[in-house]
Amino acid sequence: MSEWREDVLGSEWIFEGRLIGLRCDTVQLPSGRVSTREVVVHPGAVAIVPLREDERVVLVRQYRHAVGKILMEIPAGTMHPQETPEECAQRELREEVWCSAGRLEKLASFYLAPGYSTELLHLFLATDLTPAKGEQDEDELLEITTLPLTDALAAIERGDIQDAKTIVGLLLVWHRRLSAKE
Amino acid sequence: MSEWREDVLGSEWIFEGRLIGLRCDTVQLPSGRVSTREVVVHPGAVAIVPLREDERVVLVRQYRHAVGKILMEIPAGTMHPQETPEECAQRELREEVWCSAGRLEKLASFYLAPGYSTELLHLFLATDLTPAKGEQDEDELLEITTLPLTDALAAIERGDIQDAKTIVGLLLVWHRRLSAKE
Repeated sequence: MSEWREDVLGSEWIFEGRLIGLRCDTVQLPSGRVSTREVVVHPGAVAIVPLREDERVVLVRQYRHAVGKILMEIPAGTMHPQETPEECAQRELREEVWCSAGRLEKLASFYLAPGYSTELLHLFLATDLTPAKGEQDEDELLEITTLPLTDALAAIERGDIQDAKTIVGLLLVWHRRLSAKE
Repeated sequence: MSEWREDVLGSEWIFEGRLIGLRCDTVQLPSGRVSTREVVVHPGAVAIVPLREDERVVLVRQYRHAVGKILMEIPAGTMHPQETPEECAQRELREEVWCSAGRLEKLASFYLAPGYSTELLHLFLATDLTPAKGEQDEDELLEITTLPLTDALAAIERGDIQDAKTIVGLLLVWHRRLSAKE
């Protein structure tokens, strides 16, 4: 379906920030019409579902300025240059929940907001957890908490977990478990 | 945990576009440190899992310029001013998959990328579908497709569905089904 592709006629950089950039592209649609596309440029991210042997998930509570709320999320972070998703996953585990994973299993890679953001997120299940301490980001204030996986799923249904990557992570772990049992 | 709140010392509008805006806020962290937060301002969105009586989900394939790919997604769109999430859901169903829903059930509301975007998405399950035609957005080129719900779940596991809201929607419908049976 290459006939769906939009030809880029021009591209203007609006902003280059610490975390994201913003580009405004002028595109020609397959119909011939010319339109604009606003694109948030993001380096990509990793998120991890850390599952302990006692079936409790390790989560972090964190104030999110963009939405003005404290959210409960799985550990996650932006990829550093030259870092593989697996390296990023281990670093974020150390920094945010002070552990490292003996086993990392890829759950999925997906786009958070493909209508305007380039952000691709790589999601892992982390097991065989052992204590490890990494350097913390001084701009991040986190509270570590743990919940049984079934309680975390109930928290999604109640609306107490409101973060997309966290919902995907918990539901995918649950779905993979069910599929393995069949 | 109001002591986690970040005091906004200043706010600069960088860009106001068709779909999104960009703001750069200067904040004082609870530690006293001053930092900046880049915020993508979004009007909010609605996404719908349209489930037919034959257990097939109605999906749309669409070229996404920001990620340079054709993605398979559930119908979705940005909320118009003064529109309720339910009105937006019915409008998007008409515009994108040419049907209207006799029944709309709220599945969840969640943030797509709370690290930098204000976007809150309201997710619905739509059933009792009947044909209806709405005005289409001339900047959107869509292909409607249907898949049995179980095949759509398999497509997530295979990596053929790579859109966060679509993954959340399909897994939540499945989770609610199974929870209801217990």
